[in-house]
Amino acid sequence: MPHPKFKDIERAYGFDEIALVPGDVTINPDQTNIEFAVSDYTFPIAILASAMDAIVDTAFAIKFSKLGGLAVLNLEGVQTRYENPDEVLSQVAKTPEKDVTSLLQKIYSEPIKEKLISQRIGAIKQAGAVCAVSVTPTNTKRLAPIAKDAGMDILVVQSTVTTARHISKSYRGLILPELCQQTSLPIIVGNCCTYSAALELMRTGINGILVGVGPGAACTTREVIGVGVPQITATLHCAAAREAYLKESGKYVAVITDGGIRTGGDLCKAFAAGADAVMMGSPLAQATEAPGKGYHWGMSHSHPALPRGTRVRVGTTASLEQILFGPTSVTNGTQNLIGALRTSMGVCSARTIREMHKVKMVIAPSIKTEGKYFQVTQNVP
Amino acid sequence: MPHPKFKDIERAYGFDEIALVPGDVTINPDQTNIEFAVSDYTFPIAILASAMDAIVDTAFAIKFSKLGGLAVLNLEGVQTRYENPDEVLSQVAKTPEKDVTSLLQKIYSEPIKEKLISQRIGAIKQAGAVCAVSVTPTNTKRLAPIAKDAGMDILVVQSTVTTARHISKSYRGLILPELCQQTSLPIIVGNCCTYSAALELMRTGINGILVGVGPGAACTTREVIGVGVPQITATLHCAAAREAYLKESGKYVAVITDGGIRTGGDLCKAFAAGADAVMMGSPLAQATEAPGKGYHWGMSHSHPALPRGTRVRVGTTASLEQILFGPTSVTNGTQNLIGALRTSMGVCSARTIREMHKVKMVIAPSIKTEGKYFQVTQNVP
Amino acid sequence: MPHPKFKDIERAYGFDEIALVPGDVTINPDQTNIEFAVSDYTFPIAILASAMDAIVDTAFAIKFSKLGGLAVLNLEGVQTRYENPDEVLSQVAKTPEKDVTSLLQKIYSEPIKEKLISQRIGAIKQAGAVCAVSVTPTNTKRLAPIAKDAGMDILVVQSTVTTARHISKSYRGLILPELCQQTSLPIIVGNCCTYSAALELMRTGINGILVGVGPGAACTTREVIGVGVPQITATLHCAAAREAYLKESGKYVAVITDGGIRTGGDLCKAFAAGADAVMMGSPLAQATEAPGKGYHWGMSHSHPALPRGTRVRVGTTASLEQILFGPTSVTNGTQNLIGALRTSMGVCSARTIREMHKVKMVIAPSIKTEGKYFQVTQNVP
Amino acid sequence: MPHPKFKDIERAYGFDEIALVPGDVTINPDQTNIEFAVSDYTFPIAILASAMDAIVDTAFAIKFSKLGGLAVLNLEGVQTRYENPDEVLSQVAKTPEKDVTSLLQKIYSEPIKEKLISQRIGAIKQAGAVCAVSVTPTNTKRLAPIAKDAGMDILVVQSTVTTARHISKSYRGLILPELCQQTSLPIIVGNCCTYSAALELMRTGINGILVGVGPGAACTTREVIGVGVPQITATLHCAAAREAYLKESGKYVAVITDGGIRTGGDLCKAFAAGADAVMMGSPLAQATEAPGKGYHWGMSHSHPALPRGTRVRVGTTASLEQILFGPTSVTNGTQNLIGALRTSMGVCSARTIREMHKVKMVIAPSIKTEGKYFQVTQNVP
Repeated sequence: MPHPKFKDIERAYGFDEIALVPGDVTINPDQTNIEFAVSDYTFPIAILASAMDAIVDTAFAIKFSKLGGLAVLNLEGVQTRYENPDEVLSQVAKTPEKDVTSLLQKIYSEPIKEKLISQRIGAIKQAGAVCAVSVTPTNTKRLAPIAKDAGMDILVVQSTVTTARHISKSYRGLILPELCQQTSLPIIVGNCCTYSAALELMRTGINGILVGVGPGAACTTREVIGVGVPQITATLHCAAAREAYLKESGKYVAVITDGGIRTGGDLCKAFAAGADAVMMGSPLAQATEAPGKGYHWGMSHSHPALPRGTRVRVGTTASLEQILFGPTSVTNGTQNLIGALRTSMGVCSARTIREMHKVKMVIAPSIKTEGKYFQVTQNVP
Repeated sequence: MPHPKFKDIERAYGFDEIALVPGDVTINPDQTNIEFAVSDYTFPIAILASAMDAIVDTAFAIKFSKLGGLAVLNLEGVQTRYENPDEVLSQVAKTPEKDVTSLLQKIYSEPIKEKLISQRIGAIKQAGAVCAVSVTPTNTKRLAPIAKDAGMDILVVQSTVTTARHISKSYRGLILPELCQQTSLPIIVGNCCTYSAALELMRTGINGILVGVGPGAACTTREVIGVGVPQITATLHCAAAREAYLKESGKYVAVITDGGIRTGGDLCKAFAAGADAVMMGSPLAQATEAPGKGYHWGMSHSHPALPRGTRVRVGTTASLEQILFGPTSVTNGTQNLIGALRTSMGVCSARTIREMHKVKMVIAPSIKTEGKYFQVTQNVP
Repeated sequence: MPHPKFKDIERAYGFDEIALVPGDVTINPDQTNIEFAVSDYTFPIAILASAMDAIVDTAFAIKFSKLGGLAVLNLEGVQTRYENPDEVLSQVAKTPEKDVTSLLQKIYSEPIKEKLISQRIGAIKQAGAVCAVSVTPTNTKRLAPIAKDAGMDILVVQSTVTTARHISKSYRGLILPELCQQTSLPIIVGNCCTYSAALELMRTGINGILVGVGPGAACTTREVIGVGVPQITATLHCAAAREAYLKESGKYVAVITDGGIRTGGDLCKAFAAGADAVMMGSPLAQATEAPGKGYHWGMSHSHPALPRGTRVRVGTTASLEQILFGPTSVTNGTQNLIGALRTSMGVCSARTIREMHKVKMVIAPSIKTEGKYFQVTQNVP
Repeated sequence: MPHPKFKDIERAYGFDEIALVPGDVTINPDQTNIEFAVSDYTFPIAILASAMDAIVDTAFAIKFSKLGGLAVLNLEGVQTRYENPDEVLSQVAKTPEKDVTSLLQKIYSEPIKEKLISQRIGAIKQAGAVCAVSVTPTNTKRLAPIAKDAGMDILVVQSTVTTARHISKSYRGLILPELCQQTSLPIIVGNCCTYSAALELMRTGINGILVGVGPGAACTTREVIGVGVPQITATLHCAAAREAYLKESGKYVAVITDGGIRTGGDLCKAFAAGADAVMMGSPLAQATEAPGKGYHWGMSHSHPALPRGTRVRVGTTASLEQILFGPTSVTNGTQNLIGALRTSMGVCSARTIREMHKVKMVIAPSIKTEGKYFQVTQNVP
């Protein structure tokens, strides 16, 4: 229709809509390098465990660190609100669906105890693990110093959407450049999902950004407030910002895709879209070691007035080690994630994550219609 | 195929196909302004309640006005055909699905009583509420004067599709510029969905247009007559007409997206597509105060020869106040609509509805396939 | 990927993927003209009944003609193979799904009786109805003269795909220009679905083309041999050929969309895509007068070696008159097809079918997801 | 969003998303030629049977050769690991879904017996059939000489993704030009799916390539490692490489689409996308002669650490001859595949496979929504 347009709209893509294209050289999986570096830390595997109560407690953080990844402990979850968080988590697992949101709203209205912050961080550090913790922007000025004193190594400042600028009259917003100077520790900030917001965040001096608004399995942000950018597109945009900032400043800021990854296939696609690491929730909630007892929920599920989440029944399917490294007899991509990544890199001609960034992708909606002609069954955990 | 084309076809988008993109600045929700102005009236919240029998009766209109919105009473529905409309509404709620269309056809064949028009409007005005009423173009010349005498504040002229010009031999069509002069009240006309039709309507001197043909939950216009434009595209086109007319005349005509909104997410998307206000049906039919007793149906469902609608079982889930302002423990976006709007504006860098018009959108079909890997449940009302 | 392309592929659209856009003027439905002309015949309503055994027998043909349309009797179906076709049709209706294809293969292996051809045509003519009959290209030379002698008015030459040229060694192909000269009656040929094939057919001197390969409800051509063009695109291409041929020759050849129409909405879209008339199968098989007794199947369903069809249970829902003209209490678009067409033309600013060709269309996949939020039910027949 | 892009993404298409367009001339099916030539061999029908344990054993290979096609025996499957493979296959068929992957992992850990290689090949040759066998790149140097001594005619080197170059430190990769020289037999290599990889493979001197990564009915490569290119696009790209290589070298390398074909329709589409032959799995596993006893699974389903497959219950529906040549009473396209191909070529104006390469295709997602209006049933085997 030949009239002035009110607005242009770009097409965005999620994990299920794209696929990776094999390369022209194949590489043996054991020749691939999947390290992830942020500031002076280097992790053998480029996976972060989400700062969610169903996934990371102190024991999980220690184990995950030993296996080569980086777990993030939520300083505003049940671990710092309750002396005995396990009791609370059992209650969540036992509550029927229709009552669980109210229960979560009640549980998270309990105040955060500063003493517990120190205690949890201390336990992780004592075991020799790298300790990363997360706080929301609103509480950062209060909680970050306590966490630093307790020995945290890496600070994650995280909310649904975090920007370099915030407008409020009730409190003075968090000034990220100030925080970077004061803390003198590696800082990861999120979540964001656009080129401009990512670039602005990078310019504040932080070390990594978390990419992803609305894609998680346990998240209903898009239904409730209409906001969300599918993860492949969000990662592509933020990766473009990283390259621009690298050119501009010489500094490489890590791009971490956070949310929506359910399988090895999704994991591989995130890297091909430009991620330096991925942060995972629901796949790790399936581990025997996960504190969620087979359930998983998001941190905005407990908002007192506008909860945005679902409780997901993920089940407990295997040990953390097996989920990460296999071997497995499960064929739907939820186990041996690292084996999957290395195999994918091998057929895609990528020796490193940085080379994985160059792999070709196609838009290819995954439509399996075999069921129309014969019965397809799958060996799930 | 390199041959002359018979016709070009543009792609159109609905609520489920797009998502909003966060902005580069975040704003505290309490800093947002969601007022809506039409002519000399300003409403604290930019929501209109649909002129449908399952939603607006006099009591609902009064309550909705007190809460800050604008309810429209249908002057051609059960409220003006029956002394005791509640009896009729109970009958609709009790009738089994297979018989309900015939029943509605019978109910709406009862003549409209002029006395009841005056009575209903009088009740609303007496309570101190703003009174908006709707009539079809065919009946406008007869009913508008009666309504004006009874004290109506705002006139809505509404049918499936209303244009500035109408061809008929059986009656002289409604001339909108004449109506505007004679009535000297704010006039809202609809529904329309294209740039050219909207622009032509605006030039008749009206104050607002209703946007939306065929998108409502209780509407089967598209199946029955093939006509319909998805709401995001329809709103974008009419918003473009508003800007063009503003430039041309200096007058700002309100664009009101009407139909198809089921959640807070849809509401937010309508504003981002250019709406100044939204008109809602099914979400408000869920209120305790709604006269439909948990059911909802469209006004063309009762057409004597070509009914175009369905009865929808929406259930009764919460008070009107809670649906609008929360708090809630429901996570699917159907409650705390105003909280959702303010939160969305906050993450999208919009202080006002006018700034919400500038928010970026992406085309992002909402495909949630987590169910393939684990069980997702949701706390619905 | 910057390499030479093997082939370009154009996007094609079906009924469910598009919608009509209202116009800038509304017209009273009773002001619309929906006539259809082919050669010297003019029909009050632009609908043909498919040459299928579940739809047209002599009684149906007579009734349909009286109601203003044109029914086509298949000269190679049960009506000309069996003295008492009703017996055979009952057998089809009673046979369980798994055996019905074999039964149809057996039924259609019975030879065609020339005597029955004359008898059936005679009965239709005697009742004063216009008599159209269909034959396949292979049998045209043998059967057309018999039909002509018996009094047929219009000849339809129809197979899955019919072209102006055919390569065979077993028989001399049908030469359409010869046929047109010899028959000296209006000839409609099909099916075709592209610009070039349609143009070539038009140049042979025929009066109408049938458009549609693979779209019918009872057809599995696309699954079996991969061939098929969705109806909106097929109609747009053939309509473009009609305009080109009109410019080239001054002759207007009728474009008849055949197959895939299930509702009033589909019907309206076919005209907007450029059809001069539509040929319908399954919606008419639902009539009390249809010989199929609530079932419907395609003519290639009985192919002895490669059957391409399904038996569809359409049910018997209303009289033919009510399906065409209403009134109805059914809201899914399957009844009052003419009312729907006139209403659609009214809101789309089209006084005639020729004006309907100019109506705007949008690509708008029909996704109704209300069911996610509340229960939607529909009053079906 | 006007910022530097990180990566371009092309749209790719699978079988279900496209359809063939009829041509301007129709050809009698018996006038079509569907031969396939590779090196000095010419096969009457352009179909290969997949090198999978559920499909090809010696008896099947002999029968398939007699019917005009080429079956490939997997030299790394149960036939060469077990004296009595039938016992093992029965066990697979009897094992419940949840245990079958572990069982397959165990079965395929049994070593390959060189003696059995000679025995199986000998049996095929003795019956006068053409003998093609497959090996993985890793085992080619060891197994190919044994197979050659036993009398194999055609060597297939196959893995999920095979490229002309491989990077490994544990073994010296297979050098294809060396293999071609040493073997002096026709060599087919796969799988690949891009222009550049196909071209590079062709330049090594091989005679055919297998096209397809991730599309098979029994394959979960895309879910597990994110890799896969839909078959229409993959075939188009490799066909483009064939044309480029033909121009460059004068040599015609066969392009064989392997995987994802379930019906006659898919088969026809593969040829129209540029295939010279197709390799089929699940449709042939349905034959009475197939050793899989109604089940089918992929060769990567048994990977010890990262299994990528499903067991598919295909059923046993008809003899191999009937599946290939009919006649049939099945209407979903799974029987009389050759009849379907010839019919398709006939309506698409293609006398030869080479002419089939020129047939037009449209993008036309197959959406059948008749079920909404009436009950559609289909006569499946």
